[in-house]
Amino acid sequence: MKDQPTSAPSAPSAPSNPSNPLDCSAVVYSVNRPVYDEEKLESQLHKKDKSLVTFRQRITQQCQCSVQRARAALFSLLPVLSWLPSYPFKEYIFSDVVSGLSTGVVQLPQGLAYALLAAVPPVYGLYSSFYPVLLYTFFGTSRHVSVGTFAVISLMIGGVVVREAPDSKFYVQVNGSNMSAVLDTEARDAQRVQVAMVFTTITGIIQIVLGLLRFGFVAIYLSEPLVRGFTTAAAVHVVVSQLKYLLGVKTHRYSGALSVVYSLKAVFSQISETNIPTLLLGLSCLVFLYIVKDLNERFKKRLPIPIPGEIIVVIVSTGVTYGMSLSQLHQVDIVGHIPTGLRAPTLPDFSLASNLITDAFAVAIVGYSMGISLAKIFALKHGYTVDGNQEMLAYGLCNFISSFFQTFVVTCSMSRSLVQESTGGKTQIAGLLASMVVLLVVVAIGFVFEPLPQTALAAIIIVNLLGMFKQFRDIHHLWRTSKIELTIWVIAFVSSVLLGLDLGLLVSITFGIFTVIYRTQNPHTSLLGHVPDTALYVSVDQYEEASEEQGVKIFQFNSSIYFANSDRYVSSLKEQTGVRPEHIQSLRKAQKKKTRKSQENHTLVVCANAVRGVSHKLLPNPHSPNKEEERPELEQVNGQVKGELTGADTDSEKAVFIQTYSSSIHSIVLDWNCVGFIDSVGAKAIKQVIKEYAAVDISVVIARCNGGVLDELERLQFFTEMKKSIFFPTIHDAILHCQDLNSSPSTGPETCV
Amino acid sequence: MKDQPTSAPSAPSAPSNPSNPLDCSAVVYSVNRPVYDEEKLESQLHKKDKSLVTFRQRITQQCQCSVQRARAALFSLLPVLSWLPSYPFKEYIFSDVVSGLSTGVVQLPQGLAYALLAAVPPVYGLYSSFYPVLLYTFFGTSRHVSVGTFAVISLMIGGVVVREAPDSKFYVQVNGSNMSAVLDTEARDAQRVQVAMVFTTITGIIQIVLGLLRFGFVAIYLSEPLVRGFTTAAAVHVVVSQLKYLLGVKTHRYSGALSVVYSLKAVFSQISETNIPTLLLGLSCLVFLYIVKDLNERFKKRLPIPIPGEIIVVIVSTGVTYGMSLSQLHQVDIVGHIPTGLRAPTLPDFSLASNLITDAFAVAIVGYSMGISLAKIFALKHGYTVDGNQEMLAYGLCNFISSFFQTFVVTCSMSRSLVQESTGGKTQIAGLLASMVVLLVVVAIGFVFEPLPQTALAAIIIVNLLGMFKQFRDIHHLWRTSKIELTIWVIAFVSSVLLGLDLGLLVSITFGIFTVIYRTQNPHTSLLGHVPDTALYVSVDQYEEASEEQGVKIFQFNSSIYFANSDRYVSSLKEQTGVRPEHIQSLRKAQKKKTRKSQENHTLVVCANAVRGVSHKLLPNPHSPNKEEERPELEQVNGQVKGELTGADTDSEKAVFIQTYSSSIHSIVLDWNCVGFIDSVGAKAIKQVIKEYAAVDISVVIARCNGGVLDELERLQFFTEMKKSIFFPTIHDAILHCQDLNSSPSTGPETCV
Repeated sequence: MKDQPTSAPSAPSAPSNPSNPLDCSAVVYSVNRPVYDEEKLESQLHKKDKSLVTFRQRITQQCQCSVQRARAALFSLLPVLSWLPSYPFKEYIFSDVVSGLSTGVVQLPQGLAYALLAAVPPVYGLYSSFYPVLLYTFFGTSRHVSVGTFAVISLMIGGVVVREAPDSKFYVQVNGSNMSAVLDTEARDAQRVQVAMVFTTITGIIQIVLGLLRFGFVAIYLSEPLVRGFTTAAAVHVVVSQLKYLLGVKTHRYSGALSVVYSLKAVFSQISETNIPTLLLGLSCLVFLYIVKDLNERFKKRLPIPIPGEIIVVIVSTGVTYGMSLSQLHQVDIVGHIPTGLRAPTLPDFSLASNLITDAFAVAIVGYSMGISLAKIFALKHGYTVDGNQEMLAYGLCNFISSFFQTFVVTCSMSRSLVQESTGGKTQIAGLLASMVVLLVVVAIGFVFEPLPQTALAAIIIVNLLGMFKQFRDIHHLWRTSKIELTIWVIAFVSSVLLGLDLGLLVSITFGIFTVIYRTQNPHTSLLGHVPDTALYVSVDQYEEASEEQGVKIFQFNSSIYFANSDRYVSSLKEQTGVRPEHIQSLRKAQKKKTRKSQENHTLVVCANAVRGVSHKLLPNPHSPNKEEERPELEQVNGQVKGELTGADTDSEKAVFIQTYSSSIHSIVLDWNCVGFIDSVGAKAIKQVIKEYAAVDISVVIARCNGGVLDELERLQFFTEMKKSIFFPTIHDAILHCQDLNSSPSTGPETCV
Repeated sequence: MKDQPTSAPSAPSAPSNPSNPLDCSAVVYSVNRPVYDEEKLESQLHKKDKSLVTFRQRITQQCQCSVQRARAALFSLLPVLSWLPSYPFKEYIFSDVVSGLSTGVVQLPQGLAYALLAAVPPVYGLYSSFYPVLLYTFFGTSRHVSVGTFAVISLMIGGVVVREAPDSKFYVQVNGSNMSAVLDTEARDAQRVQVAMVFTTITGIIQIVLGLLRFGFVAIYLSEPLVRGFTTAAAVHVVVSQLKYLLGVKTHRYSGALSVVYSLKAVFSQISETNIPTLLLGLSCLVFLYIVKDLNERFKKRLPIPIPGEIIVVIVSTGVTYGMSLSQLHQVDIVGHIPTGLRAPTLPDFSLASNLITDAFAVAIVGYSMGISLAKIFALKHGYTVDGNQEMLAYGLCNFISSFFQTFVVTCSMSRSLVQESTGGKTQIAGLLASMVVLLVVVAIGFVFEPLPQTALAAIIIVNLLGMFKQFRDIHHLWRTSKIELTIWVIAFVSSVLLGLDLGLLVSITFGIFTVIYRTQNPHTSLLGHVPDTALYVSVDQYEEASEEQGVKIFQFNSSIYFANSDRYVSSLKEQTGVRPEHIQSLRKAQKKKTRKSQENHTLVVCANAVRGVSHKLLPNPHSPNKEEERPELEQVNGQVKGELTGADTDSEKAVFIQTYSSSIHSIVLDWNCVGFIDSVGAKAIKQVIKEYAAVDISVVIARCNGGVLDELERLQFFTEMKKSIFFPTIHDAILHCQDLNSSPSTGPETCV
């Protein structure tokens, strides 16, 4: 390479020629070199020797740092070890205490409320707001997320729990009378807690396994529009499920497909039995919470800590219910018995496990992806990194260990994490303190919340999810930016509302993946033309300046080439360039036959033809006895080229047209700019199409093929039949090569292939 | 553009400078122009006005050619109209008659045999070898395929038929005695025929609908390795299902998951009851057929028509069985009653339909894709085209119409089509004649085949499928060429053998699609370097000559950027370039704090520091009282940069290292060579990463972005925050721009972003 005295292109050397006065940039792009194809280029480059580390060296290396590695593994498993010893006590502790107490005060009512969603007694929500939060301090890598109960996950658990332990299973005959079967709520709740526990254990195990296998990436399948559509659907589910508590009517809880419809129908069929005190209490809570939320939002900057609306609602509504004996006098449903103190750990009942595994997968992945997306946002804002796989492991350990203490699945909650971060939380010390607040309530004053009305909890849940309904605005936004993503959003929403969250999630992930396939299957294709004097090539459809080179077509296809689009590649290549080898081929055959026939008849009709002055090659003799034998081939071509030939009427005119048109194209350049990979089906298709064109003397060359794809083609044995010299590093190299080849008449285009 | 007096790059003008003596090509690549970014380029180009056709014009156009269009539609629906009128009788008829008779002679025994696979009485195989073949002559576009019964499809039908009408349903109590329930084969077979009929009708309807909707492309999901794995599995199923006929033992027929295992177990548990005459007869047929097949293969060129081994086996074994009364004396199972003549059409029993729809989808698509792939091979060989959608429609119409005459689903058979083509068949006149041969047998001499032993049919089936077992060689081939395709093959084979053909097909299609996602998720990434004097950039890992530009990293990622890989894009960008903005950011923060602290302490320790001669910016004063407050930030960085810094031991050394290293990089070029599309998640990630780098004064520019992707970014509102001038048409433009920007000290890198 060094022996070519070309001008140095790598340095912005002083330009001599280009002096566009409008152009303030003085930098020139100046290259002067021979045309390269990949073969020539490779012959001038030297492959690097990969300096192989011997097995012994590697062993030595691994043994040498074994202590360090053990330490690193320990630090990775328990991130607390890396930050706690160097905790800047004086600087951080005040913020962390304030943040911890504020978060704890939100954790408490949310724990009680989300237990309702999970269809277990409220105290289990408190347990779930204590153990996992405590554990996350040790295992988590995010400093700002608030782990604990979360509406969407609680709802998904609730669906499973109700399915596995439905009301209908727990009716008991009272006093032998046939008619009055009474619901044994105690047995039912005990069973539901059992189901929730096992479910949490399994979810934890799944998350641990995925974390250890470094499968943290699974969350990527939950693309943003999908998650937003899905969570909006979850909000619909939640609000519908809470209507009955708000109205104080008693209906079954439904799960599975169309449960939203059934629940709504059940609530509205009993709307006449609405408990007015319940409704009034619920609505006042709702309005109060909404106003507080709005105030917090509006005066975010001026308030040192957000107004703890939820705990106020809990305290006031408990007081009101207790003081006015609403439960006894007006049948307002209350939380009921809250046992004081913690429970000893128990072993989950794994006999229930078999039905839960698929649901647990869904919850494990949704829970994790909610958590990691939030953690990443905070990490970005505060300039640190979170480790996706360690987070997966952390959630798994939190859920697994806690499940022995009767908790249900946790992840981090958006609203609570925002409280923890905005009140100045610096590390998970805040989370630890929040869990201590919950612990205090559980061991000391839990019974105080016994008269808490369920309608207040429903209000808390609903107001927390109102924000999610704002996601409906996405539809308008996505309509303008990306129809495909809009479709993903809508499919995720509709399928999750109608089919339930688990099945809806599966449908929407599958759909999301299909959109990728669809995009690679229907890529944008275009013909490129040269922008004069630049060696740049742009779409001839889009730009006036782009001019197609004489006799050359440049075809671009914006996708990799593989089984699902290789047919499409070939057909759009033929369509866009307008050069169909099979037509040319069959026309040539027909003409050859005619020539032969004509030559056979020559002795008879030569005089007549000479008089008419018509080339016997193109116009068959109408009186020829063989006419009917010549028709079929042309007839078939006829149907195929109809689209292109609107002006030509007779077979022979078409023949002339095709002949002229096709012979003017001598080369086709395939721009492989966007080909990221190729498979055997794709390679075969390309090989085939190159051969087809070669048979009609059109040479096909390939430009801008990626190094990795060249290696792949090598492995696919593409080069056993094709030469590497048909590959060019740039379009311009390919064009120059084709022009050169066709300007020198001695070499035919076949040498190019 | 025209005002730049650059040297003309488009013409292979005589070169002056580059005169490499080794280089025989005289063509030079010579470009001399200003550096362009996309903004500048666009400002110099003019977008084309799309000449819009007015609505009225379009209407007029459509009305004008309505007769032509109707004719075209009719010709497209009935391709026979286009070729039959111009059929070159004299030239073609002899070949077609020879080919038709040869194919008919194969059609006959295969029809009888495959009916066994489809679990219906043999005569229905004959019907299926007549009606659809006749119809395909009118609707088909392929001239060489032989439509009719096919092993894989027949087996799939058989699975469904046995599932819907199992033996167990048709046991009847004999004479009131409890113990001896007898299988009512007549009722069972009648029911099975009903199921097969309805199934065929539904399959036909699905194919017609898919054909009309132009969904012929669905076959593309069946990639070649998938189909080969699948058909190999089908061969295993077929051979296993035929073992009992070959051995003459009576077992149930199993369907669904693990049916192969159950069938094998059932056969081997009864192996002691093998009917020796049946086995001997079957084995002789098998050996004879295998030899004939081998001879046909070996003397392909010398034999005018292949030896019709199958019909010889049928005739001889029928004769032997009849002559030696094997059926009566040795309980050799025979075909039994074959009614003479055709039946009047009947309406299928649609009450059976609901269970069959998913299976019908599988059969419709598999059947079509077998047919179309074969048709394409012949079309390519003989230089005509087949229309995928019309083929789908043709199969649909054949199946739908024929189903009223009690046929089961047909497609084209590989072995038979080869006979039709190799014996000189020119058009579907050959197919028509083959169907006439079958018709002759059905209406005249069907009863002759009544003593035909089933073991002979089993031998015919097995020998026909032996070829498929050769596909096991694919494993070795794929191992060397493509591990991913090997996995598809193996998954298709294993899942289809174990789960059954329908479920196996679904699993393997899903898996095939996931491999595409996997490829885009884990693309090849590399850093590029400049090949001196060429403006070409190749991987620095691979080639010695590739040199990285001072202060610039060029990052290439071989895939589109979308939700499933945008995280990966960002992380591998940071990993490959080694420039992590968050580390630089947190280090800078820590240093700023130290600077501040040090300045505060300055009055106290200024003298001591001055004596030590160490910059207080980089090495904190070990005696500083604030030491513990400075640790945590560095401690976190510590963990993150460990991989990169093996030589540095103390925090401060690391700080120096990072500082030096990162400050040496001023620009990063993202090569978007392989980016075929981008979605909102991808666009956000890119925007984010550009901002992150901008915050640490590293400018990110993008090279070789496709026109379509630029339009997509526009729609995704990428340019509300980013400038279009960060996009460059080539890497070299981008590099020259970055170098220029950083050589002039007046402008910082921020202006680039």
